[in-house]
Amino acid sequence: MSFVTVPQGSDFPLENLPYGVFSTAGNPTARIGVAIGEQILDLSAVLSFYPERVQGALKSTVLNDLMSLGWEAWDEVRRTTKELLLEGSALHKDAALQQRALVAQSDAQMHLPATIGDYTDFYSSIHHATNVGVMFRGKENALMPNWKHLPVGYHGRASSVVVSGTPIRRPYGQTLPVEGAEPAFGPCRLFDFELEMAFFVGGPPTALGERVSVRDAARRVFGFVLMNDWSARDIQKWEYVPLGPFTAKNLGTTISPWVVPVAALEPFRVDNFPQDPAPFPYLQHEQQFNFDIKLEVDIKPKTTGVATTVCRSNYRNLYWTALQQIAHHTVTGCNLKPGDLMASGTISGDASDSFGSMLELSWKGTKQVSLAGGETRKFLQDHDEVLIRGYCTGADGLRIGFGSCAGVVLPATPFE
Amino acid sequence: MSFVTVPQGSDFPLENLPYGVFSTAGNPTARIGVAIGEQILDLSAVLSFYPERVQGALKSTVLNDLMSLGWEAWDEVRRTTKELLLEGSALHKDAALQQRALVAQSDAQMHLPATIGDYTDFYSSIHHATNVGVMFRGKENALMPNWKHLPVGYHGRASSVVVSGTPIRRPYGQTLPVEGAEPAFGPCRLFDFELEMAFFVGGPPTALGERVSVRDAARRVFGFVLMNDWSARDIQKWEYVPLGPFTAKNLGTTISPWVVPVAALEPFRVDNFPQDPAPFPYLQHEQQFNFDIKLEVDIKPKTTGVATTVCRSNYRNLYWTALQQIAHHTVTGCNLKPGDLMASGTISGDASDSFGSMLELSWKGTKQVSLAGGETRKFLQDHDEVLIRGYCTGADGLRIGFGSCAGVVLPATPFE
Repeated sequence: MSFVTVPQGSDFPLENLPYGVFSTAGNPTARIGVAIGEQILDLSAVLSFYPERVQGALKSTVLNDLMSLGWEAWDEVRRTTKELLLEGSALHKDAALQQRALVAQSDAQMHLPATIGDYTDFYSSIHHATNVGVMFRGKENALMPNWKHLPVGYHGRASSVVVSGTPIRRPYGQTLPVEGAEPAFGPCRLFDFELEMAFFVGGPPTALGERVSVRDAARRVFGFVLMNDWSARDIQKWEYVPLGPFTAKNLGTTISPWVVPVAALEPFRVDNFPQDPAPFPYLQHEQQFNFDIKLEVDIKPKTTGVATTVCRSNYRNLYWTALQQIAHHTVTGCNLKPGDLMASGTISGDASDSFGSMLELSWKGTKQVSLAGGETRKFLQDHDEVLIRGYCTGADGLRIGFGSCAGVVLPATPFE
Repeated sequence: MSFVTVPQGSDFPLENLPYGVFSTAGNPTARIGVAIGEQILDLSAVLSFYPERVQGALKSTVLNDLMSLGWEAWDEVRRTTKELLLEGSALHKDAALQQRALVAQSDAQMHLPATIGDYTDFYSSIHHATNVGVMFRGKENALMPNWKHLPVGYHGRASSVVVSGTPIRRPYGQTLPVEGAEPAFGPCRLFDFELEMAFFVGGPPTALGERVSVRDAARRVFGFVLMNDWSARDIQKWEYVPLGPFTAKNLGTTISPWVVPVAALEPFRVDNFPQDPAPFPYLQHEQQFNFDIKLEVDIKPKTTGVATTVCRSNYRNLYWTALQQIAHHTVTGCNLKPGDLMASGTISGDASDSFGSMLELSWKGTKQVSLAGGETRKFLQDHDEVLIRGYCTGADGLRIGFGSCAGVVLPATPFE
């Protein structure tokens, strides 16, 4: 039990200990912290308690160095943090040190936790891929022939990944309002969220030409965040042939600030999604690498100020595991760097209220989604706030949460 | 005229002055240099001659800081470098300083010139897009409906960009050898090069949600390099629906080490490619931003050791200009960082010996390409070296070249 109070229902008990990067008004230097209850343990203030070989990494303004040290170092750091936060610890006994080392989350500004070298977005939820396929190609051709053979993915834009709380501006772009007619230019009309999760890659950089096997991949997963991959559906539809999404996605991707270590998710491992046909051997693994993480999306219009949960999904809906994503990503020799971000793709369940995007919830704009306070939505309107939550709950009341992943839609900037 | 000898036919006369990052056996620290003839002017050795406000950037181990300073600083640095290299300069008069500041290119190891934040690959050659379209969709549907309305592009993998001379390993991956049958797993059989050029983005970082207008875009182009975007054609064909190329491209992309400033290309500006229909206003510009850069690709098999030029193309074949690429890339609000790399896509001409890939030269493997020494190729074989050259030539004998962009194909690593 920690000497730091952890309120009932907190995302951040002693069993979680997620990493983040924060600053305060009094100390604007970005530094690494660990969330505990409503506090942050400022690791830069307690460095001397940690093994010498990790101190340099913990002194950094981003998590990349810690990520690069590998899973044994992660274990050591986690163990030390846990001991420090226990009742009776050296920190508990030193009120002056606590004063320096514990910061209220409400006083902290959160930053991107890592310098993201490259960002990859997968497409690993079978319900999402099927829904989109049915809408655009019909039931018979819902899944592309490759979908069950490899984790389809594409490279995203790393520069446009932002931390929770950053407003996202509705973009201008090209669309094709009428099939076969001339394209139009104007503000995006079908602005959407995508409920995703993502993991940060850890371990030392790999060399170009090197493969990371599906067996070794588990040691490459540093931790998970929530993600909202904002999408301009109308722009995407026109631009994406034949090379995939581009400007429809590079307008902003929001992640939650706290990186939850895989170790914190151990109690919530569940069976991997059954795969039929069996994938190629390079994608086969026995280890459970799916997790029972409940996911929810709220929309909160500015007009009513009332949030409505429009989607309840779960990370376990993913067909392809993170290990398979890594093995596939590197099968042709792509080199990885600590701090690379790999996202799941939209995580939809099989029920109509578990779909992870407005595209699916409004079934391509054919249905209204009702919000509390009498409003309805087919896609996002200006000033709507989208909030994503994620948490695991155990029978014993254990809750491991991911904190908030939020963003408001700003109106488009008029085009001169 | 420079006091440094510039041999006849050199890529690097006083009018070029491209930037690179190099190290030597005697001084393994990476530092910024400018190519002149067969020498490199080590800017770290002559810093005090430069305006104080750029000295910090010139002391760096990469070009990003210089790129970020913007076009006025680039002008100043270029002017100073030119003066230093003229006959009668302070450097000319100081033999000891020359000893320290001039390094033979043959003694230098070249590095990636910048830390590449994000790498974007466009698809801007109309002949290439048409060729690929005809092969895969027939003459009637050669160009996708969006192609003439926007510069199609996708996000590439920044970590896999390497400098000329880095060997590239043939990858393993999934392919579909027989349409409608089961996929196969094994070494890539249709390994290819892509003749491209790329430019580095300069200027201060832009904010997410900000647009860079087509008028302001010229100040964002720091300089150009040659590029070979190695491609696993068989892997790409199976994986790329619906989200674009992924593992078929992240196995390595080679760039030439010297970044040729736009100022050096001034004499070679030519009319932009005629665009019909006229693009949307946000893509329209009057300024010439096309360049007469001759491009050649050689294949040199290890067996014969003899290089054959298999392609002669030209940068002016691009339908979409770099300015249009930047304006489109940011139209939805994508933020740019100095050091971002934007590539042209394969640059094919309209003649059959001007096609910028083996896919086109062998017309999807239906024709043999003859090499000197009796060999033939449809796609690349192990140990083939691919060499790309690029240069501008003026009537007065002026030659502005890009140096070498080379790489050898290594055999695939057997899969355990």
